[in-house]
Amino acid sequence: MPKYIAIAAITIDGKIAKGLNHMSDWTSKEDKLFMRALLSKCDVVIIGNNTYKTAIKPLSKRNCIVFSKSAGRPVRKSANLLYVNPKKINFKSLITKLGYKKIAILGGAQTYSWFLENNLIDELYLTIEPIIFGTGINLFAPPRLAPGETGNKKFGDFKFKLVEIKKLNKTGSVLLRYKK
Amino acid sequence: MPKYIAIAAITIDGKIAKGLNHMSDWTSKEDKLFMRALLSKCDVVIIGNNTYKTAIKPLSKRNCIVFSKSAGRPVRKSANLLYVNPKKINFKSLITKLGYKKIAILGGAQTYSWFLENNLIDELYLTIEPIIFGTGINLFAPPRLAPGETGNKKFGDFKFKLVEIKKLNKTGSVLLRYKK
Repeated sequence: MPKYIAIAAITIDGKIAKGLNHMSDWTSKEDKLFMRALLSKCDVVIIGNNTYKTAIKPLSKRNCIVFSKSAGRPVRKSANLLYVNPKKINFKSLITKLGYKKIAILGGAQTYSWFLENNLIDELYLTIEPIIFGTGINLFAPPRLAPGETGNKKFGDFKFKLVEIKKLNKTGSVLLRYKK
Repeated sequence: MPKYIAIAAITIDGKIAKGLNHMSDWTSKEDKLFMRALLSKCDVVIIGNNTYKTAIKPLSKRNCIVFSKSAGRPVRKSANLLYVNPKKINFKSLITKLGYKKIAILGGAQTYSWFLENNLIDELYLTIEPIIFGTGINLFAPPRLAPGETGNKKFGDFKFKLVEIKKLNKTGSVLLRYKK
C-alpha cells in the first residue's frame, strides 16, 4: 500500500502563508533542512499548481505530480513532471501504475484538503514556527460547492495520533509527527 | 507590570471551534485540568461575550471581565463580573486601577485578536489537540475595517519564543508555551 505523507510548516496560528505566492521564505533553516531530507526519502512530490510555481527550481530534480484544475487528462511535461486533475482521474490507480510507494504531499491548502477529504493522509509532519501572522492562508481550505451543488458538504472530525515531538532549533520551531 | 497570558486550545489545523457556540467539548480532559489549574493562578479572566455565554457556569466563581461591543461604559453586573467595551476605555488603566497582576485571556478569536493587535500578549499557552476540523473558527480573526475606513489595516509578524513543550496525554495533546 502506498503511504501518503503530508508535510507542512505553519505559524502558531495555523497559517501556511500570508497570501497566494507567499511561499516558504518565513520558515526556519532547520525546517527546510528537515523537509529536504524527508523529501529525499519519498518517491514523488504532489503539489498544487500555485504552490508549484513558487518552488519550481528546488523541485526540479524530484518526481513531481502537479494538481491542476486545467489539466483535462494527465499531461507529462517531462520525465519527472506530470500534471493531473485529481477530479478527472482515478488518482490511486495512477499511483499504483506509476509504482510510487512513499508520496509526499506539499500543499497548498487545496491540495492538502483534497487528500484530507479523500482520507488519504497516513502521516502528517507539521512544523510550527514561533510566529503569528494573524491572518493568511489556512492549512486546509474549506470544501467548495460545485455550481448547483446544495448539499452540506463539510469536513468531519479527522482524528490523528501524535507519534513524535521534536524541537528543531533554539527559537522554538517544533516538529510534530502525526499518524492516522 | 501586569502580565497578560493568552490560553487557547486548537486543533492541528489551528481552529478553536467549528462555529459560534461550539465551545470546548472537543478538548481533552488533560487540557481542561491544566487550564483550570492555570486559571487558579490568575487574578482575572478576560473573555469575549459570545465565548462567555458558553462558559458562564465554570467561570461563575472567577473574576471575569467580559468584552462586549454593546457595553457603552464599564458595567459591573456583580462583585466578580464586569462588562467593558475595550474600544471605549483605557483598558490598561482599568487593569492597573483594579490591581490585577496576572490576566488570563480566554478568547474567542476577536478577544485574542484585540490583545494581539495591541501587543498585549506576554505569554501564550497553546494546547494542540490531535484532531483536524478542516474548517471552523481560527485562533485570530482578521482585523475588521470600521465603516468608511480605507487604510490597509493588517496584522504584522508577531514573533514569539517557545519556552516549554509538554505532552499532556497518550493520544498526543501537546502544550506549547510561548513568550513574547
